[in-house]
Amino acid sequence: MKRIGIALLLLASACFAQGPDGFVPASTNVWGAAYPRVDANGRAEFRIKAPDAATVKLSLWSNPKLDMVKQPDGFWTATTPPLVPGFHYYSLIVDGVEVSDPASHSFYGGGKDASGIEIPEPGATYYLPQDVPHGAVREIWYFSKVTANWRHALIYLPPSYETQNSQRYPVLYLQHGGGEDETGWIKQGHANFILDNLIAQKSSKPMIVVMAYGYAKRAGYVEPDLTGKPLGSPEMMKGMQEMSQTFEDDLTQALIPYIDSHFRTLTDRDHRAMAGLSMGGMQTFQVTFDHLDLFSYIGGFSGAAGQLVLGNRTLDPKTDFHGALADPAAFAKRVHLLWLGVGTDEPERMKAGLEKLHTSLDEAKIKHVFYESPGTSHEWQTWRRDLKDFAPRLFQ
Amino acid sequence: MKRIGIALLLLASACFAQGPDGFVPASTNVWGAAYPRVDANGRAEFRIKAPDAATVKLSLWSNPKLDMVKQPDGFWTATTPPLVPGFHYYSLIVDGVEVSDPASHSFYGGGKDASGIEIPEPGATYYLPQDVPHGAVREIWYFSKVTANWRHALIYLPPSYETQNSQRYPVLYLQHGGGEDETGWIKQGHANFILDNLIAQKSSKPMIVVMAYGYAKRAGYVEPDLTGKPLGSPEMMKGMQEMSQTFEDDLTQALIPYIDSHFRTLTDRDHRAMAGLSMGGMQTFQVTFDHLDLFSYIGGFSGAAGQLVLGNRTLDPKTDFHGALADPAAFAKRVHLLWLGVGTDEPERMKAGLEKLHTSLDEAKIKHVFYESPGTSHEWQTWRRDLKDFAPRLFQ
Repeated sequence: MKRIGIALLLLASACFAQGPDGFVPASTNVWGAAYPRVDANGRAEFRIKAPDAATVKLSLWSNPKLDMVKQPDGFWTATTPPLVPGFHYYSLIVDGVEVSDPASHSFYGGGKDASGIEIPEPGATYYLPQDVPHGAVREIWYFSKVTANWRHALIYLPPSYETQNSQRYPVLYLQHGGGEDETGWIKQGHANFILDNLIAQKSSKPMIVVMAYGYAKRAGYVEPDLTGKPLGSPEMMKGMQEMSQTFEDDLTQALIPYIDSHFRTLTDRDHRAMAGLSMGGMQTFQVTFDHLDLFSYIGGFSGAAGQLVLGNRTLDPKTDFHGALADPAAFAKRVHLLWLGVGTDEPERMKAGLEKLHTSLDEAKIKHVFYESPGTSHEWQTWRRDLKDFAPRLFQ
Repeated sequence: MKRIGIALLLLASACFAQGPDGFVPASTNVWGAAYPRVDANGRAEFRIKAPDAATVKLSLWSNPKLDMVKQPDGFWTATTPPLVPGFHYYSLIVDGVEVSDPASHSFYGGGKDASGIEIPEPGATYYLPQDVPHGAVREIWYFSKVTANWRHALIYLPPSYETQNSQRYPVLYLQHGGGEDETGWIKQGHANFILDNLIAQKSSKPMIVVMAYGYAKRAGYVEPDLTGKPLGSPEMMKGMQEMSQTFEDDLTQALIPYIDSHFRTLTDRDHRAMAGLSMGGMQTFQVTFDHLDLFSYIGGFSGAAGQLVLGNRTLDPKTDFHGALADPAAFAKRVHLLWLGVGTDEPERMKAGLEKLHTSLDEAKIKHVFYESPGTSHEWQTWRRDLKDFAPRLFQ
C-alpha cells in the first residue's frame, strides 16, 4: 500500500533483536514490531505512541487494568508482573476508548478482532510447530439451508490424509467460545500443532478436526426487539435458545453431511466426537445429547451442560440429558467418553459449576473424566491442555 | 470469554436489519455489528463510542481524513460521500492515535491488522461466493532452510482436486503487496471465489494458487543499524535488496520444492505462473526473470520491474531482464504471457511508471497485455479485476 513501503517494513524489522534486558518481541506481534516484548519470567512490556492522549491504560482481560506511563518521546509504556503462561487477549484504552494495539496480530475474541500476547510456558512444546509431519488446515464454505447463507469453517486434516488416498478418518467437531469464532482453535489454540505433535508421538489416532462458526440465524427468523429489555429477559433467553437450536440444526443437517460427502471420513457414531470450550462446551452438550445417534465422544472444556454448570440446580440423572444417564452401564456402553475440564484459577462460579456436575456424575455412577489444569484460568492455556488430554482418548 | 456472553452477541445481532434509510451493515463487519453501514450509492456511515475523546477522525486510507462528529450519546459518527466500489482499508484516529475499529474484522495491511470496509459494486458477482463448486483454501507451514524458520503460506486447491485423485494441476504463485501478508489475496482479494467462478464458467483452467509470505530474513543475517539513516539510505537499500533476494531464494529453493512434493502439481515451467500486486509485482519480475527455467507466465498488478516502473530510467531491452527481451520472437516463444495492469485512478507516479514500461515494451516489440481498471486506484478492486483478466490467460 502507498501508506507504507518496503522501506518502512525493513526499518521496523531491524528492531527484532533481543534487548540487553532479556526482553524479546512477542510471537504474536506483526512482522517487525519490537513491542510488546516478553522476558523469561513471563513479564510483558507494552508501548504505544500517543503524544496527544491524556490517559492510556493496558487491559489484559484476565487481569486488573494497568495505567501506562507517558514518556518524553510521546510513547506510553507499561511492564506487567509475571503473567500466567499462554495466550492472553488484551486491549489498550486511549482516553476511554478500548482499541487494539497496531503492533499485535489480531485474534477474534470478545466479539472483535482483539490484540493478543503469547507468554511462553517454559518447557512446553506440545502446542508449537515441531519437526514432525504437519497436517493441513483448510477453509471451507458450505451453503446451509438452515441459515440460507454461506458459512465458513476450518478443517484440520492429519498429515497422512494426502498420501494415504484410500484411508478414511474419524472426525472431532471442536467449538470456540462465546465472542470467538471458527479461527480461534487454530490462531489462539494451535490445535493443528497439538494434533500434529500427538499424532507424531502416536498418542493420538490421526483424525480430522472440524471447527465450525458457532453463531447461526435461521433463514427468515425475525429477531425480537430487545430495546429496553434487561440482559436475561425472557425475550433474550428465547432468542438465545433459538440461536442454539439453529446452530444445532446447521451442524447436524448441513455441516456434517457436507463434511461426510467432501472428506474421507468414517461416518458412523463410533467415529465422531464433539468438544468445545465455554459456550462451545454448552453447545457440545446440547448437540451431542440431542444426537447420540451421531456422536459417541463428548468433551466440555470450561463449559458443559448449561443450567447444571451455571449452578441453578442439581443433576437429575433420570430426566436430564433426555434420560441418557438413567442407566450408567448402558450409558458407558453407548458413550465412549464423557470428559470435563476446568482451570484451577477460573472464576469461582465456573469452577463450582463444573465441580458440581463432576460430583453429581460420580454420585450417579456415570463414568467420566474430570481434568483440572493447574494454575490457569478461563483462557486458552487451559483449553490447549484440555485438548492435549482429550484427543488421545478418542477413537482408541 | 467472560467479557462477553452469548446474550450480548444476540443483543448485537438484533441490529442486523436494514435501517429505514437504506443503510445495511457492511459485509466486513464482525458478527452483529450494526456499523459501519453502506447504502446502494456506496456511501458509508461509521460510528464509535468515545465519550471522553476530544477528537475522532475517520481515515479511509485512499481518501482525505474526515472529522467525526460527537453525538449527545457519546458516539462519534461520520458519513462519507459515495466511495469507489471494492475493499478499502480504514482506521479511526482517536485523540491523535491511529486505531482499528472494533466493529470491523481486521485485514493485514499497512503492517498491521487494520479495519476494512467492503463497498459492493452493483452487478459485480465475480468475486462473491456463488452456487458453484468451491475449491478449498489451505494453510501450510514449511520449514525453510533459507530463513531457518517455519513459514506460513495459503494454498487454493481447485474444486476438482479432491475428487480427481490422479489429476495434476498447474500452479500460480500469487503475491500480496507491501505491508500486507499471505492472507491478503483471500481475505481482501477473494481470490478463491474469483477462481471458483472462473473455473465454473470454464473461463479458467483449474489451477492451484500458492500465496506466500512476502518477507524473509536470511538465517544468520544481521540487519544493518539504521538509526539516524534517512529513508532510502544506501544501508536501507542494501537491506531491502537482501530481503528481496532472500524471498527469491526461499520461494525457489524451499517453497516450490515443498509444493511440488506435497501437492499434485505439474512441475515444468510451462505449468508455473507468478503474479503479484505492488511490491508483489516487483518481486514477481525479479523472481521470474531470474528463473525463466521455472516460470513461463508473468503478471505485474500495479507493480512490476522495480526501477523501470518507479520511473528512474527507460527500458533497455538488450540488458534489462538479463537480456531476455533482446530477441522478441524468442521471448514470445519462451514467455507465454507477460501481463501488466494498473487502475486508472492510481497515483500519477505509479500509473506513469507502468504506462512507460508498457510503451517501452511496445517499442521493443515485446508481446504483452496491458490492462487498465477503470476508475479504481491502488486498491483491491483493481487487483481483483486484474486476477479476473489474468487467470483465464494461463495454461491454455
